[in-house]
Amino acid sequence: MSENEKTNIPLLRTIDSPKDLKKLNIDQLDTLCQELRTFIIDQLCNNPGHFGSSLGTVELTVALHYIYNTPYDRIVWDVGHQAYSHKILTGRRDQFHTNRKFGGLAGFPNPEESEYDTFSAGHASNSISAALGMAVASQVLNEKKQVVAVIGDGSLTGGLAYEGLNNASSQPNDLLIILNDNEMAIDDNVGGLKDYLVKMTTSHTYNKVRNDVYQKFKRKNLIGEKGKNFILRFNNSLKSLITKQQNIFEGLNIRYFGPVDGHDLKGLIRILENIKDLKGPKLLHIHTVKGKGYKPAEESATEWHAPGKFNKDTGERIVSQAKDQPQLYQNVFGHTLVELAEKDKRIVGITPAMPSGSSMTFMMKAFPERAFDVGIAEAHAVTYSGGLAKEGLIPFCNIYSSFMQRAYDQVIHDIALQKLHVIFCLDRAGLVGEDGPTHHGVFDLAYMRCVPNLIVSSPYNEHYLRNLMYTAAYGNDGPFVIRYPRGQGELKDWECPMEVLPIGKGRKINEGNDLAVISIGPIGNTVSSAIKKLEEKGHSIAHYDIIFLKPIDTELLDEVASKFKKVVTVENGVIAGGLGSAVLEYFSDRNYQEIEVTRIGIPDAFITHGSIPELNKLCKIDVEGLTEQLGQVLKK
Amino acid sequence: MSENEKTNIPLLRTIDSPKDLKKLNIDQLDTLCQELRTFIIDQLCNNPGHFGSSLGTVELTVALHYIYNTPYDRIVWDVGHQAYSHKILTGRRDQFHTNRKFGGLAGFPNPEESEYDTFSAGHASNSISAALGMAVASQVLNEKKQVVAVIGDGSLTGGLAYEGLNNASSQPNDLLIILNDNEMAIDDNVGGLKDYLVKMTTSHTYNKVRNDVYQKFKRKNLIGEKGKNFILRFNNSLKSLITKQQNIFEGLNIRYFGPVDGHDLKGLIRILENIKDLKGPKLLHIHTVKGKGYKPAEESATEWHAPGKFNKDTGERIVSQAKDQPQLYQNVFGHTLVELAEKDKRIVGITPAMPSGSSMTFMMKAFPERAFDVGIAEAHAVTYSGGLAKEGLIPFCNIYSSFMQRAYDQVIHDIALQKLHVIFCLDRAGLVGEDGPTHHGVFDLAYMRCVPNLIVSSPYNEHYLRNLMYTAAYGNDGPFVIRYPRGQGELKDWECPMEVLPIGKGRKINEGNDLAVISIGPIGNTVSSAIKKLEEKGHSIAHYDIIFLKPIDTELLDEVASKFKKVVTVENGVIAGGLGSAVLEYFSDRNYQEIEVTRIGIPDAFITHGSIPELNKLCKIDVEGLTEQLGQVLKK
Repeated sequence: MSENEKTNIPLLRTIDSPKDLKKLNIDQLDTLCQELRTFIIDQLCNNPGHFGSSLGTVELTVALHYIYNTPYDRIVWDVGHQAYSHKILTGRRDQFHTNRKFGGLAGFPNPEESEYDTFSAGHASNSISAALGMAVASQVLNEKKQVVAVIGDGSLTGGLAYEGLNNASSQPNDLLIILNDNEMAIDDNVGGLKDYLVKMTTSHTYNKVRNDVYQKFKRKNLIGEKGKNFILRFNNSLKSLITKQQNIFEGLNIRYFGPVDGHDLKGLIRILENIKDLKGPKLLHIHTVKGKGYKPAEESATEWHAPGKFNKDTGERIVSQAKDQPQLYQNVFGHTLVELAEKDKRIVGITPAMPSGSSMTFMMKAFPERAFDVGIAEAHAVTYSGGLAKEGLIPFCNIYSSFMQRAYDQVIHDIALQKLHVIFCLDRAGLVGEDGPTHHGVFDLAYMRCVPNLIVSSPYNEHYLRNLMYTAAYGNDGPFVIRYPRGQGELKDWECPMEVLPIGKGRKINEGNDLAVISIGPIGNTVSSAIKKLEEKGHSIAHYDIIFLKPIDTELLDEVASKFKKVVTVENGVIAGGLGSAVLEYFSDRNYQEIEVTRIGIPDAFITHGSIPELNKLCKIDVEGLTEQLGQVLKK
Repeated sequence: MSENEKTNIPLLRTIDSPKDLKKLNIDQLDTLCQELRTFIIDQLCNNPGHFGSSLGTVELTVALHYIYNTPYDRIVWDVGHQAYSHKILTGRRDQFHTNRKFGGLAGFPNPEESEYDTFSAGHASNSISAALGMAVASQVLNEKKQVVAVIGDGSLTGGLAYEGLNNASSQPNDLLIILNDNEMAIDDNVGGLKDYLVKMTTSHTYNKVRNDVYQKFKRKNLIGEKGKNFILRFNNSLKSLITKQQNIFEGLNIRYFGPVDGHDLKGLIRILENIKDLKGPKLLHIHTVKGKGYKPAEESATEWHAPGKFNKDTGERIVSQAKDQPQLYQNVFGHTLVELAEKDKRIVGITPAMPSGSSMTFMMKAFPERAFDVGIAEAHAVTYSGGLAKEGLIPFCNIYSSFMQRAYDQVIHDIALQKLHVIFCLDRAGLVGEDGPTHHGVFDLAYMRCVPNLIVSSPYNEHYLRNLMYTAAYGNDGPFVIRYPRGQGELKDWECPMEVLPIGKGRKINEGNDLAVISIGPIGNTVSSAIKKLEEKGHSIAHYDIIFLKPIDTELLDEVASKFKKVVTVENGVIAGGLGSAVLEYFSDRNYQEIEVTRIGIPDAFITHGSIPELNKLCKIDVEGLTEQLGQVLKK
């Protein structure tokens, strides 16, 4: 921490754990909130992270750690975006400059990092289920542990959250769910639930009457469980009558409180004190503003979700991308989809709440009636795509690889079994960088390969991405998977005419004699660079881009087996069950013996966070790592 | 069809497609419903199937095909249990005696079987998403196609259904969702939603007022969109006021109608006519009785969900299991769990709506406060188990293998990443028989093997199941997978003292010289039988039971590689990515060349339905098939 930062946060720098926070009076807590904001802005303008959500939960975090006895009591954050203040207040202030960096703090709560982090929180919607488990365990063990789940309104669109809600009242427990309602997820939140929350929050009549009741309650100094229960129940009935809205939480037997202003620290502390010891599952609905306290972020929440570096004084975002750099794969997908859609009315696009990240926004702008953001709901996205395909549309269902794990059954049961013509574009395949182990898209090759009827492919570069998209639409009438990574492509000119590729056919991209490398996807470019280095040393290495993991190119493999004693497979995915295994299986089936196969990929472990180059280096799949590994095979 | 059956169903036997049905008058339709019941009872008493649900939807099915123009209009059934009348009315009456039989009709709707079957319906909760896709496609394509999803109250607890509901109002569509509420899924339905539906249905005041309004509406013969809309909206407001219940559907912007009696054919036809052309997504809540029209089934719905053969006159169920037969694996699991729980308060059990099927009922009876049926909610079951484990409990989370596909991300993100001590018992692993391709648990070995930190195992017999359960609890403190099949075990005496097995260690169960077979799980018993047959012919075959797929026993594999030129792997799972691949990977990593590996398992295709022996024969993994396959390897 610089001297400047220290003087900016005199109070915050005395807080080394929630214990220190409990010594403060209410005015000091207010000051602490201001300092937390200052600190977060100071830190994130230089070291990018999830900005908007972290500013939105400052008061809530302070209130929770003030009221509850953490870490004995459990706070379960749903998606770690919200948890920066939590990290800063729980002994990690001075390491916070390492947030999301290789070897530094994780961007999400991480139980291995701190006892205050209770549960993994990279994928949305898991907090209620996990917290309910903890709350029920506390009852089974006769403990007095309090458990609080904090879930955003976006995360609440996920089916897992609903399953948790539906189950929350069926076992004795005192769980508190805090609904952090900022009227959006990363992109604009969608679906009936959003409208419901907005209406409930913005009913002036309701809010006025509610306030009157609360003031009366306060003046009369009603105390005791009974009084509180009465007033709060009355409050809920009022809501139903006045907002003309239905309360879905009470419909699920969960007592509902709110909505309250999530930036009113005193109000939050008061209501948490009031409901803390109430028996049974309950939900407190708070209303917060993403980016609260930093004007540019308040005004444009989507852009400031994770803004990258910025000038904190001007609010100007610092875009570091140099000119003449390759396009992002995401943008190539987005532009190509629009190009296809322009010529064919059957083409539609589906994203589960990732329109910006996937560049589905291009389609949403060009053909709003044919682009569907279905909310944080991957399983639904897949089955919904199946319904669209059933009627003759050609859906491009774009889901991040690691999130597709959420829809595995739907891929098998709703799509592959019926051979429906759905095209899955798995974005963020391979190592994704700073988001870390929860987000690496490294299992897809293995978990897709074992599913019958699927075609599984990955493009070598932007042109192949375009051709695979075209092939998926017009060279095929069944399910088709295309995986590609996060970030920049390989070419300066991504545009090209599109053509149908022969399905299940790979290609040779380098001649050689000593060794054959078979790769899939853009990592093939890294392989090419490694081969060049080795060629400079006099080695002769053949290189095949298999393109399709399934069906695999058996002619190509026959050729490789007939010419080479040494074969290396390279993939940006887990080493168990992917391309390497597929090659071994085929060689074994054909009884090709005396071929030494070396499989290169992601080791059988969860890979930490860091920049993609750092992680590639760690896994030895950067140019140097591949050169070294290929060199070792050559030496054998 | 026997002559007797024909005379029982004079009207039904004239119905070869829904077109024939449309010619009938309302009284004839009533008769048809009676005949459908007679036919279903006649058929199912001899050829077992899903009895209760199919009797509950007779009137609904007749009404839907009467009102809608199927197959142009789309009926999407959620879980095929409901769809027997639908099959019978859509040209499959005379084949219905082949229901669930090898080569016969599928027990669930199957688009390959009939154009009237619109979508796969083996796994619950997918109907709303699929139907929404179809309804939106109809709008995009400017068609006038009507789409109806029929979903049970049990299926509505699944997160996928909620994701669909939440998304249903965000795109223009005229979807009709019919909530077939029989107050239970297979076992008693659980969670807040159940209480909600029961309260809404049973409010006498509400129902009375509602009826009065309806009668007025009828008398005044109000017609036209406006009138209908008004009366129906008023109806809904009434409900809110009178039931004091919140309407979660209206909360999600879906217009709600009902509840109505699902066995009142005329009433159903009338209301479907009324709401058929209303714009926008809407839900009709109907109330039905499982087993309707067959008294024993009405009185005991869980037992009559799928009762097996029965005497239709007496209602006596015909149990064919002979004495002295091995216990079901399910019961061994159930008894063992209770035995463990008696000695250790930390042991708890979790099932997603399959207490009877998994025998979790034993634990629910013995320790109701430590056994959790969380509803049809596999993803929640897994994450909830993670929360329980986090606080020091030892959860046995029992999920059918094919349903675990629903919780794949939760296994990776919420359990494996955090190394939580959750024990997954994957019931119904391998081929499951009559339920067919949607239910075969054949992917688990492949999709679990690629996940870091998991231990993946399968018992050779009941004693190994007990020992693996014990080992998972006391020989290990991380996630542990135990897969075992549906049905009878191998031993007459399943009880045995339990011990901790060395993790990652297999065992030799037969000495031999010509060939080594490595198997996993109970299929090893079939292998043993095949080996005996071949030994009788003079062959000498070694047999290893690997027990653990992950971590795999490398010492055992080293031994095999050092002694044998021919190795065969056998597993009751897909051939891509499972045990065979694991062995190939290890042999390749150690560069063991000149070993001919033959992988035996389930081919890369969806396997049809039929009895387990028939399917094992089809896949050549019965004794004869294995004998033949091993014989071929020996011959090479």
